[in-house]
Order: sequence, then structure tokens, then C-alpha cells
Amino acid sequence: MPSVRRVSHEFLQRRGLTTVFGNPGSNELPFLARLPAGFRYVLGLHEGAVVGMADGYAQASGRPVLVNLHAASGSGNAMGALTNAVASRTPLVVVAGQQVRPAVGPEANLANVDAPALMKPLVGWAAEPTCAEDVPRALAQAVFEAELRRRPTYLSVPYDDWAAEAGENSRAVLDRRVERASAPSADQGRRLAERVAAARRPALVLGGDIDSAGLFDSAVRLAERLGGPVWAAPSLFRLPFPNRHPLFRGVLPAGIAPISAALEGHDLVLVLGAPVFRYHEYLPGRYLPPGTELVQVTEDASAAARAPMGEALVADPGAVIELLLERLGSPAATAGPYRPVPEPAVADDGVRLHPEQVFAALRDELPEDTAYVVRVDLDERRLVAPDGPAAARLVLLPGGRWPQISG
Amino acid sequence: MPSVRRVSHEFLQRRGLTTVFGNPGSNELPFLARLPAGFRYVLGLHEGAVVGMADGYAQASGRPVLVNLHAASGSGNAMGALTNAVASRTPLVVVAGQQVRPAVGPEANLANVDAPALMKPLVGWAAEPTCAEDVPRALAQAVFEAELRRRPTYLSVPYDDWAAEAGENSRAVLDRRVERASAPSADQGRRLAERVAAARRPALVLGGDIDSAGLFDSAVRLAERLGGPVWAAPSLFRLPFPNRHPLFRGVLPAGIAPISAALEGHDLVLVLGAPVFRYHEYLPGRYLPPGTELVQVTEDASAAARAPMGEALVADPGAVIELLLERLGSPAATAGPYRPVPEPAVADDGVRLHPEQVFAALRDELPEDTAYVVRVDLDERRLVAPDGPAAARLVLLPGGRWPQISG
Amino acid sequence: MPSVRRVSHEFLQRRGLTTVFGNPGSNELPFLARLPAGFRYVLGLHEGAVVGMADGYAQASGRPVLVNLHAASGSGNAMGALTNAVASRTPLVVVAGQQVRPAVGPEANLANVDAPALMKPLVGWAAEPTCAEDVPRALAQAVFEAELRRRPTYLSVPYDDWAAEAGENSRAVLDRRVERASAPSADQGRRLAERVAAARRPALVLGGDIDSAGLFDSAVRLAERLGGPVWAAPSLFRLPFPNRHPLFRGVLPAGIAPISAALEGHDLVLVLGAPVFRYHEYLPGRYLPPGTELVQVTEDASAAARAPMGEALVADPGAVIELLLERLGSPAATAGPYRPVPEPAVADDGVRLHPEQVFAALRDELPEDTAYVVRVDLDERRLVAPDGPAAARLVLLPGGRWPQISG
Amino acid sequence: MPSVRRVSHEFLQRRGLTTVFGNPGSNELPFLARLPAGFRYVLGLHEGAVVGMADGYAQASGRPVLVNLHAASGSGNAMGALTNAVASRTPLVVVAGQQVRPAVGPEANLANVDAPALMKPLVGWAAEPTCAEDVPRALAQAVFEAELRRRPTYLSVPYDDWAAEAGENSRAVLDRRVERASAPSADQGRRLAERVAAARRPALVLGGDIDSAGLFDSAVRLAERLGGPVWAAPSLFRLPFPNRHPLFRGVLPAGIAPISAALEGHDLVLVLGAPVFRYHEYLPGRYLPPGTELVQVTEDASAAARAPMGEALVADPGAVIELLLERLGSPAATAGPYRPVPEPAVADDGVRLHPEQVFAALRDELPEDTAYVVRVDLDERRLVAPDGPAAARLVLLPGGRWPQISG
Repeated sequence: MPSVRRVSHEFLQRRGLTTVFGNPGSNELPFLARLPAGFRYVLGLHEGAVVGMADGYAQASGRPVLVNLHAASGSGNAMGALTNAVASRTPLVVVAGQQVRPAVGPEANLANVDAPALMKPLVGWAAEPTCAEDVPRALAQAVFEAELRRRPTYLSVPYDDWAAEAGENSRAVLDRRVERASAPSADQGRRLAERVAAARRPALVLGGDIDSAGLFDSAVRLAERLGGPVWAAPSLFRLPFPNRHPLFRGVLPAGIAPISAALEGHDLVLVLGAPVFRYHEYLPGRYLPPGTELVQVTEDASAAARAPMGEALVADPGAVIELLLERLGSPAATAGPYRPVPEPAVADDGVRLHPEQVFAALRDELPEDTAYVVRVDLDERRLVAPDGPAAARLVLLPGGRWPQISG
Repeated sequence: MPSVRRVSHEFLQRRGLTTVFGNPGSNELPFLARLPAGFRYVLGLHEGAVVGMADGYAQASGRPVLVNLHAASGSGNAMGALTNAVASRTPLVVVAGQQVRPAVGPEANLANVDAPALMKPLVGWAAEPTCAEDVPRALAQAVFEAELRRRPTYLSVPYDDWAAEAGENSRAVLDRRVERASAPSADQGRRLAERVAAARRPALVLGGDIDSAGLFDSAVRLAERLGGPVWAAPSLFRLPFPNRHPLFRGVLPAGIAPISAALEGHDLVLVLGAPVFRYHEYLPGRYLPPGTELVQVTEDASAAARAPMGEALVADPGAVIELLLERLGSPAATAGPYRPVPEPAVADDGVRLHPEQVFAALRDELPEDTAYVVRVDLDERRLVAPDGPAAARLVLLPGGRWPQISG
Repeated sequence: MPSVRRVSHEFLQRRGLTTVFGNPGSNELPFLARLPAGFRYVLGLHEGAVVGMADGYAQASGRPVLVNLHAASGSGNAMGALTNAVASRTPLVVVAGQQVRPAVGPEANLANVDAPALMKPLVGWAAEPTCAEDVPRALAQAVFEAELRRRPTYLSVPYDDWAAEAGENSRAVLDRRVERASAPSADQGRRLAERVAAARRPALVLGGDIDSAGLFDSAVRLAERLGGPVWAAPSLFRLPFPNRHPLFRGVLPAGIAPISAALEGHDLVLVLGAPVFRYHEYLPGRYLPPGTELVQVTEDASAAARAPMGEALVADPGAVIELLLERLGSPAATAGPYRPVPEPAVADDGVRLHPEQVFAALRDELPEDTAYVVRVDLDERRLVAPDGPAAARLVLLPGGRWPQISG
Repeated sequence: MPSVRRVSHEFLQRRGLTTVFGNPGSNELPFLARLPAGFRYVLGLHEGAVVGMADGYAQASGRPVLVNLHAASGSGNAMGALTNAVASRTPLVVVAGQQVRPAVGPEANLANVDAPALMKPLVGWAAEPTCAEDVPRALAQAVFEAELRRRPTYLSVPYDDWAAEAGENSRAVLDRRVERASAPSADQGRRLAERVAAARRPALVLGGDIDSAGLFDSAVRLAERLGGPVWAAPSLFRLPFPNRHPLFRGVLPAGIAPISAALEGHDLVLVLGAPVFRYHEYLPGRYLPPGTELVQVTEDASAAARAPMGEALVADPGAVIELLLERLGSPAATAGPYRPVPEPAVADDGVRLHPEQVFAALRDELPEDTAYVVRVDLDERRLVAPDGPAAARLVLLPGGRWPQISG
């Protein structure tokens, strides 16, 4: 009968989770023993870096990624970076080592007492299997929950479990597949399309999910069909729209009053793939101008439920864009050419380099599909978001506002 | 400017949550002050009964229902009944009173210290608004989360909040609506239909969700189209199929080995609206017979993720049934007439009444749309599930196995 | 080698936890198998009653008591009564059944998913052992934590663990003993005694802990030595002082302003065995009159830490009373005779019985050591606390204010 | 009326928490405004370093220390270092910024959703005050809980609270003091002393708490009175005994079987200020040799409750040492001179420096009261613990085993 480890490795292979990011300690070594050919282990020497790399890899590949962490202190080191992964809705599957089963209750050194409780408030789904036999199923659950919730999950495994026999049913996990259906029903689709078609001055607000889901180009087609202005949602983590497109108005300011001012005059605001809204500075005011209605389309049910105003449809934004493109007529006019790439600002003294010069040089030299991650200084408000092709996710060039990775 | 209470009452009116079940204490009275005409308050003298009534009312009406509980001890009393509501996936919105804000930290009498932490492990979503101004929005969130998750939610509100001013934005909550789209995409639908059409000996397993969602009759149409046997899923909370229908095989036994034996010979098992599976007795064995594949369709993402075998599609079972009815050809043969209502068993001594006689008499005398709730004794295995029309949810008549409400 | 069950039973025998209160389901039966002679199982048909009986038994006996509950729903039913046990600081050891280990993760029927998380917010210490071998040690931990914290604890045990072999070290648990030392140091004692001796008009406030710890008579000796007035702390759960004693002033009103008014004119308030203070009605005001200092002595570290004013010494009130009796001089004057038992009030109409008549009749007929539990109606403010000897814990006779069991 | 901030600053001044370690973001700035003269803010650019510095400062000073962290991500970054502080029982008071109250529920950027839930599993006490008025009292509670539990605590404060009015009662917090009494009662003391006196071959095991509590020299006196061997407890975080003392036997190996072997032949093992035991490698065996009894004295009630064998007295080890020194007779013989400082090992090639040479050079050059923190490589088993005077806490010189700071 195969070991828990062998079945788990095979499950990970079948699901394509063969690039592992980690920083192991003694509790984790038994999982790594006999790792089959084809696995790649990317070592980081601090868990913040480990999770950051895994987050980027998952965002770039669009697939869940395995992270291998040490018990309480290693997992603790990762929690700052994991908050970013939660905000970016990245499906990381964190597997952490636990002491051997008899040593957990007496709190032996490196025991992670009540390990799921430590992580659950942050990641939403966390577990430690009740026995070795349940490990492969629980690992599959961790992968599926991460995909379905688009959020990290956490599995703590006592290290004596990996060598245990997996049980006769364990191979059933190898054939497991889980998908979520998320198209609107015919009636929901019709109502939404009629409403958008009836709007006199619609505006579009796009969130980072649009780019995560590969909808950068679809969003351009929808915007050109609607003909109205396009904003990126505030507190953005990925750029969802070309920043030199003539319809693009930049990133909405992250305050109640300024967003209301920005949306003045629009009878319908369609928000795709974003919370409504992730404000930052507390600038009180009316949520929306009088006469403005708002419809949010997001796969994030929690974001739909907690929003303070507007209607929400919990659905795949991609399915909704397709549906609208099908049902809406042709655009009234073409959108016009992209705005030119601006000249970078130059430092006053003519000697030092201005940051925009640095970024412009990077843009000209780096490969087209380079992805950039930027920690934006809150004061650099005049820096603007990148345009770049859809292939260059997170691309950050002078010429627009900058996505904020974190505050 | 309106009070928090007035906006909250108006929101509940608009959403149709005007029948309130509760057992209030002093913390809850300010919420009940000035309750508008049209609200109905159903008082229970123990929270177990309060939640039980609300659960039944929500299941019968198919709508979320407001429950009004006292702080820690009242909420504590409700937790047994709430576990049933969690298992039945009933959207109860529990609003509990909290001491006035300055009295919570010092743990005044009737303060519910860290109230959300007490309930969150059970209900999944629990909160206490950070300030009075946020109460109406949080109440809306509690309602939407209950609907989207089909699970109870819990909101703790300091009682001095109700009389506070609601703030200029508070009325935005009155126009909020949240829906979930859950139809499969065109591609997902096509793949599923082809697979079902290709099955030589398909079997259908139906869960309580089928009846909760009003799909009792649709399930009959699908079963007759497939022509194979139909089981109810084990550990059932509602009857999803007529128990005298010729295709009905009863409730699956709640053990691994006996389910595997029951499904012997079927190449495809389609499970709609149920976990896979809610076993009870630990009777080890193979999950499925060799050559049998299983596809689960459920709206419960967690049930999909944790299942030990098979594939899963997280989708509205109703949409999937419609899709299959559209795409599958006509049935080969008609299903034949319903089985006759069995004569009730008679007590051995000819003097006492056998339980089946009691139920048969109740069936004959009570109105057709009566709903029954039964606490099944685990030893009464030979009792069988009811048939009844779809209108009679939870109907329990002799002639089949009984749904288990709890163990 | 002995089974987990046998070692556990023997541990409970040695510690004297042989009277078990419970309401078992199928998960609990394996624990009850082969229960040795000398155990007594008190069955209740609702967990509220089970915990209530166990709470009273533990309070009356002054010893930790075992409670045997069913998984999620049974434990849920108990949570209201457990909030009272938390408030009364009663060391109940709740042992609940869990499904067999392989059935927990897939959420089989009667599995208690993440059982400790459900109870921990309420009871403070909750666990499910990581393997069968750890059960006896974890059971001992549950008993010791309950004693050390004076609070219920919760242990969830998969029912397949009881028959497992206990391991060679398991009998080490049989000789375990844990005590807490809690006398003040010499210096702490001296400072406190000097301060009390120097007070011109000291007042004494006593909490329910005084009676729980068997200090009813010691408190009388201390009060007579101090010569000042004595109050019972608000939101009381046990009577700590004879209610007809000439120095007794009744139960402090449970509001900020009225307590401040009651303590007017005292330079030092010594609070023994009570929180400072468990207010109920929100009646704002100054915490203390000008010139009044407050010193709290309690074994409850959390109550000491969260109090809004005064100094605190986390110590055994009994040790502190002994220390003060040793160091303070003799009282200035004797306290005088007890007040007479008041005549019970009579109903206006001369026909019906007034509640005080009922209680007076009960007092005259029942054995002297009867303990009473009363759910006090909040409006019956004029009802007054009992006197009774220390042996009659919780005694409730007309002639004083009533302890509140819960609100 | 003073602001919440002013009262809080004044409370911190009175309690001596004026050296603040932190890494603030925008949520934290309002707390830092108008920081009175006399406060010192030590900035770290990663929260791991911030908490590490604060931990060392608190250990060296023996006092609670304030840590100022950012919301979710900043607090997350700190969690690895906080697990070390939990293991070292260091009283850190972490105050973290939260978004303004109305922005928390809608999850504005930098809102720390359910902040206490994130930290509570790790730190044990975490809170977010329910209103601004409660902030000063809650801050005091955080300080007192940290002192009483010897563990970090966490307080989340919405940043709009600091400028709010504090309320008339707020200054009551300035006079608060909380102490714990922890001497054994006369009877407990007598029993323990008799037992130790009656032991034929007693052994002493000392934990890091001995040095944290300033009992390094007292422990030497006790050991010389007993005349038996002395070990440091396994998984040590501070050196509790001079490593060249003739009675010192080094650090106990962190496995069940080797500890049992080491203690062979002793009828009584007295463990002071340590868990029993913090094993690391899983090396099964008997917990204790036949005929060996164990008594643990610790202030950590949880460590006492969870130990798998032996008796425990939850008490101040310092009070117990004093008591034993008073009651035990004079030692039979003097202990003899300290062992000489060993020559450091030399690298094989005669060119490179051996690590012991580096440490020897450091020892000779650094001031006498330097404290060392070492991350011990698990393979460097032959390195041995330092001797050093009591003043040099954590001192690490060649010549003994090394304390492990973490694994």
C-alpha cells in the first residue's frame, strides 16, 4: 500500500503544483523526502520572500501554488506577506510541518499548538488532519478551497504522517476535480444587459481581478462598446486597463467624497472585478452623486455582501463581459488612438536621475513580458499607471497612476 | 436624520424579514422599540425553540428569517439548534443585543465579551459593528451573507447604537440587492450533458437541497429521463423525491461499505444537492465500486472541496437539471405508476397503537400542505421515508425511510 | 498494555471525578463502556439541565466535576448553561464525543468539525488530542486547567480512541498532581495590612468567590475586626455574608453612579473575591467618590487586569483574610445582634400568596443545608438577600436582596 | 477634558513604558502625535527586527515594553518573532493602528478586519476597544495582562479614537496597579521542604525563567545546599546556571529517552522555572526512570497543567528557593572551584578561524555585561553553554552547551 507521502506527491503532480516555494525546518523534511523528479523547490531564506515569490508566480501563472513553511515561527514570519496574498486573492496552498502526533499536546519544541487556529482568521480555511490516513484528502481540500475561494489555505501535517500507509481509498483523491460554475442565468443576463443598454452615461470601474482573470483585452472591447470613461478601482493590486487608452481616466481616488465627485453625472456605474470600494483615506461624503446607480459584478461573495451601496451580482466578470458584448449593439464611435508615451520628468538639477527616467529606461530595455512589482510611496500620487500589453501583467511604466501593492 | 433603528427596520421591511422569532432580554429591547406595523414577533421561551421555529419557517418560506436573541447566555442556548440550521443550510439572520459600548470592555453584567468569536466557528459569519453608524450596513451584510452562504449569520449590536443617528449615507443600504449567478458556462454544460448521455447505467442521488430549492418535481422529470434508480443521500434533512415513485430506492445507508455495495454496477453516479457523502456509522470499505465514476453538483463549495472522491461542479442544481432536460433525449420508457401506500404495521398485542398507525392517522387527517419535523430514533431503521407532493416539505408518512433531522 | 479508556477511568477515580453528569449519543458510548464500579452517571435529557446540575454539584462540593456531552449539537445545547458556569467560576470538565478519526475531515454525520474552536471562546481551554495515545494526559490537563482557572474546560475525543492502547508512559498521569500557591509575599502582606490598618473608614465589598471558597465565616470575622459596613458585590452569584448581620448593607446596586454614591465617605474600599465591578444598568457617573481608594483581592487575574479603577492583588482571598486577621488589632466594639427575620410581605387581596410568603414557608420546612438556585426577575428589586449559615450555600430567604443568577 | 491620547500617554509614563519599538504606518501616526518628552521611539524597518529588539529590551530590563505595529500586514510581519516572545514569556504590549471606525466594516484599505481574532491564538490576550472612551482602560488591561501572564498582548485601536475626549472617569486608570501574589502557603511550603530534605539523591533542573527572574545567584545557593547535580532544562532560551560550576551537568538532551537516562538514580528531580519538558527530537522511552519522582515549580500554570508526568506547584520559583534555603540545613560539603575556561577549538587547517575562537575573542573584548543572542545550529551539539556572571544574561561563551533561541 502506498505511503501518505507518495499519494500526496502524485496528487500534486496531477494538479500541476510541482513548483514549491519554501523555507523548511526539521518538521518539513519528511514531506520533501523522495520528492519525484519534475518537482522544483525554490528556497527562500525568510518566509516573507518565500510567500512573495509564490504570490507572484501564482499571479503570473494563474494557477494555485504550493508553499512549504515551518511550524509556528515560520508560519508566523509568513503572515505579513500572506495578508497581501489575501488582498490579491491569490490561491496559495500552504503546507506546514507539525511535530509528531504524540509531541503536540505536551508542546514539545517546534510543536505548533492549535496550528489551524493561528492561521484561520487570516486565510479563511486552515486544518490539521485528525489522522495520517486523512492527509491526502485534506491536501486536496486545501487545493480546491484555495481555487474556489481564490485565497490562501493552510494545512498543518504532523511529520510522522508522511511515512504512514495511506489506506485503500487514498488513491480516490487522484481523480478528484472541482470546478465552479458562474455564468448568470438567462434571466439575470437579460436584466443586466437591458439595464446597461438603457444607461445614458455609463461609466466603467475595473478591479485587479480583471487582469488576474486574463480579461485585460475583453475589458477594452467592452469599454469601447460602451463608449464611456473607464477608471481603475482604488487600492489596486493589478492594472486592468491600458493606461494610455483614450477612455482611461486613471485610478479612482481612495476616498468617499472624491469618488462621488469623480462619478458625477453618470446614471450607471458598472464595477467589474473589484470591491465597492476599497477606500483608504477617510474623506467623508455621499457614497454616490444623486441619480447615480451602481452595479457590481464580482466573484468575491464577501465583497458583494459587505459593500455599503449599490446592487451586486456574484458572477464571473468574464462571463458577464461576454454576455454584454453579445447583447449590446455596436459602439457609436471609435475610441481614437492611444495617448503617446509621456516624456519622463527630469530632475531639477539636471544631474541626478528622476525616478521616471529610471522607469522609462527600464521599460525600454526589459523584455516585453516582464512583470513589475512596485511598493508605491503614498506621496508619489502624480506617478501614473502603466499601459503595456495584457501579457505584461503588473507592468508599471510612467504615464499613468500606479497600482498600490500595499499601504 | 433618521436613527440607526429606523433605517434598520426599513431595510428589513424592504427585504421581507418582518416575521421575527426571538426571546429578548434587556439588551434587545431598544431594537424592538417603535417596530413598525407589519412586523410580527414570535416569542419563544427557550432559544432552542426559537431557532427551531425560525429554521422551519425559513425552510418552508424559502426566505431568510430574522432571529432576535439575548447576549452570551441566550445565544449560547441557541447553539444546539443552530447546528441543525447549519446542517440544513438555512439562512437565519441572528441579531443579538450587546451591552452599551462603554460597558463591554469592563465586562459588565450581560456584556457578551468578544461576541463574534463565540459564534463564528459555528455560523461562519459573525460581526459586531465598530460603530453605531455602521450598523445598517452590517445588518445588510448579515442578510446577504446568509443568503449567499445559505447558512446562519450573527450580528451583535450594542443597544445604545439603535437610537444613534444613522449618518447621511445610511439610506444607501435600502437599495442594496445582491444575487449570485450560478449557471454553468456553455462549455461546462456541454461536457456534463455529454457525460450523462454517454452513461450506460446512470444512478441519481439527491440531497435535501433539492427540496429546499423547490426542485422536487424537476428531479422527478430528470429521473424519468435518465430511467435509472434514485436514492436519497444519507443523513438527509428533507425528502427530495416521492417515496412511492417506482424509481425510488430509499435513503442510502450512511456507511462507506454499504453505499459502495448499493451503487455496484453503475458507471456514473450523479449526486445533486448533497455532500458526498454524510456518512454516520464507520463501516470501512471502498468509496465506490470499481468502474463507477461520480459527479457531484452542489452550491455548497465547502462540500465540494472536502469530498473524498469524485468530481464536483459548484453550481445551482436547478440550472443543471434544466440544462440536462434540454440536452438529453426523451426517456426510453415511462416510469410506471406510483407504489401503493402501504398498510401501517400493527402492534403485536392488538391493543396498543403501532407508531406507523399513528402516522397513518395523522396523514389522513392533517391538511395536505402540513410539514412534519421528526427526531428519528436511530434504532427505527425500518421506518421509511414519505412520499407526499412537493408542497408538503419534510412530509413524513409510513412507506419509506425517514429523513434524520439530527443524531 | 492498558487501554486509553482504562487509564482515563482510573485517573478520574483517583481525582474523585466519579459523579458524571451527561446526555450521551452514539459518539460517547465507548467512553462509558466498562465504567468501573463506584462511578455514578446522572442523566439529563437536555444539556442545559445537565450542565446546571453539574454546576450546582461542583459549587456545593467545591470540586471539579465531569460532564459528558454529545458532539456539536449536544455541546451547543450546553453553551447557555456554560456561560453561567463561566460567570460562577465553576471547574466543570466537559468531555465530548467525536466521530472516529478518519470521519472527521470529510464531515461525517455527528462529526464535530474543529471542535475546540467552537468551545474555546467560551470556556477558555479546549482541545482535541492529536492521537489516541495523548488522551489520558490531555484529560488530566483538562482537569488541572479547570482547577487552576476555575472555569469549565472542554475535551473532544474521537470515539475510536478509547479502545486504543494507551502506551507505556500512560500510567504516569495517574500520579500527577497540580496545586497553585497563592499567598502574598511577606512584603506584599505587610504593605496591605498597614494600608488597611491606616484606613479611617474602611468598607468591605465581598463577591461570590468568598462563599465558593468556604470563607463565609472568615469574612464575618474580618468584617467585625474592621467594624465598617459590608456590601455584597453587584451581579452576585452566591451570598458571601449573613444578610441579617448588623454590618451588612445589602448588595451594591449594579450601576456606576449608585455605587459611587453608596461608597461616599469611605477612604478605603477593600473588595474581596469579586470583579470591580460587574455593573448592569448603564448609569454613568464617577467610578468612586473623591478621596476614596479601592483595593481588589481576587484569584481571577483577568478580573484584576480589566477593572477600570483601583489597585489589585491577584491572590487567594482566604490567605489575605488570614493575614489581615493576624496583623490587625482587636475590634473596637462588638457588632451587635443579628437583625430579626422580617415578616414576609402579604398579598394585597389577602387571598393569594405573596412570593415572600412562599419563600418563608420553604425556609421553615426545608432542611438547614438546602441550597437554593433562583432566577431573579429584574423587577423584584425589593426582594432581599438571605442570611443563612455558611453551610446553606446560595441560600435565599426573605430578608435581604437576592443574588442574581443570570440576567 | 483630556483626550484619549493624553491619558494613554500619561498612563504609559507612569508605568515606565516610555521606550517604544515600532514600525508605524498611517494608522499609527495619531498615537504618536504629541508624544511627551521622555518617550524614546526606536524605529525598525521590519517588524521581525522591531519585536526582536523589544523582546531583548524587555528581557534585559525585566519590564513590559511597548511595541507599535501597523495593522494586518505589519502585525503579520511580527508574528514569527512574537512566537519567540511567547516561548520566552516576554511581556510585550503590542499596540496596533486600525482604520477609522466607520471604515473597518466595509474593509477599507489598511482596515484590520477582526484584528483581535488574528492575534489572539498567538498572544492569548487581544482586544479592540468597543469605543474610544474605553481605550485608556483597555491599554492598562493590555499592560497588566502582559505582566500577569508573562506573554505578549495585542491592542488594536482605530486611529480616530486618539483625538476623542477621554471621559470623566478616564484618569482613574492612572492610579491603577496590579500585582500577583505567589508565595506557597505555610502548609504547601512545609510539605515541599520536607520532601526535598528527605531525598537521598536529589537533582535540580533549571529553566530560563530562573534567569529572567534574577534568580541566577539564588539558584547557585540552592544547588550548593542540595549538593546534587544541576541541569539546564532542554530547549532553553536563557542560561540559568554558571556553566563552569562543578555541579553543572549541561543542558538536558531534548528527547524522552535520553532525559530518562540522564536522571537515572535520582529519587527526586526538582524542576524550577521550566516546562516538563520541552522535548524536540522524538526519541520515545519512559518519561522517568523507575523510582524517580519529579516536582515542578513554575509560575506558568499552563505548563504545569499540560506536563505528562510529575507533580506541580504553580508558584514563584524565587519564593520557593527562599523557603527551601530557610528550611534546609547547611550543605554537607563545599562545591569546589569552577572549572577552567576551556581553550577554544582550532580549525583543522590552521588558517581559518574556528567558531569557538571567534566567540572566545568576543568574550575577551566585550564589556562584562554584554548580553548575547544566538541562533544555534542544531548540529553544533558539542558547543556548550556559557558560564558568565548573573549580570551577563544570555551570555554565550565556549565551554558548555548553548541555549537554543529557536529551532
